[in-house]
Amino acid sequence: MNFTMNFRKANEDDLPAIVRLLADDELGSKRERNTEPLPADYYEAFAAIEAQVGNQIILAIDDQTVIGCLQLTIIPGLARQGMKRAQIEGVRVDKRYRGKGVGEALFKEAIVISKSEKCGLVQLTTDKRREEAHRFYNRLGFLASHEGMKLIF
Amino acid sequence: MNFTMNFRKANEDDLPAIVRLLADDELGSKRERNTEPLPADYYEAFAAIEAQVGNQIILAIDDQTVIGCLQLTIIPGLARQGMKRAQIEGVRVDKRYRGKGVGEALFKEAIVISKSEKCGLVQLTTDKRREEAHRFYNRLGFLASHEGMKLIF
Repeated sequence: MNFTMNFRKANEDDLPAIVRLLADDELGSKRERNTEPLPADYYEAFAAIEAQVGNQIILAIDDQTVIGCLQLTIIPGLARQGMKRAQIEGVRVDKRYRGKGVGEALFKEAIVISKSEKCGLVQLTTDKRREEAHRFYNRLGFLASHEGMKLIF
Repeated sequence: MNFTMNFRKANEDDLPAIVRLLADDELGSKRERNTEPLPADYYEAFAAIEAQVGNQIILAIDDQTVIGCLQLTIIPGLARQGMKRAQIEGVRVDKRYRGKGVGEALFKEAIVISKSEKCGLVQLTTDKRREEAHRFYNRLGFLASHEGMKLIF
């Protein structure tokens, strides 16, 4: 399988492709509503992301096809002498493109942006059931130094 | 010890008191620079927090004294049908006021704000060495369902 890989910031027209990726996942399939047309909630959420300085969805693209996505949020804070942190959420790679370095390339793109924004670290939380993901993040240099705690309403 | 407890959003004049709290901590003491005047980095970071929609520092106040702080960031996202998440960083309580419910009250304030902003969850990462903090978060209903992974530059 030959493919090209480019990266760009998502725009509203990409939402159906992004939600398809979010839903095509063992845990995500129960959480998303991948209908046509998409529920308005996704469009409202995208507008809110666009309205927040430092928040963006980054896409990996093969030709015109969205093959991977992640959300990168730059969060300024006071701790560690006013260090900014980059946070990653919602990482997905199209099943047909797994094992081909797409996730790694997406992360490297996010890390380049985070460094250019003067972040001191990149952080994420990953479900303890996603063991394969943990190995992937370890290979990229992430350490599981923290507990990721959630209070779901 | 009698004291009152009120909550409010931090402003720039609170920075020396906040950095004093951030530095007065086993892990934080190595990471902060609590000089007088404060390094300009803290003022720049506070301005960046103020400029980001959804990002704020919440203080617990006894009379005029800052006795606790946390950073609350509302992050819009696409996953889980466009669910917003609230993220907490930089939680500190003045040592003289520990064990008196200040941290719990601060969290309850942050949770009220998060619900009013229609967040679906509150999340945080906590250093695996902070065992006492884990018990505190568990009591508030947080579950350590995720690994908190960091890539420090």
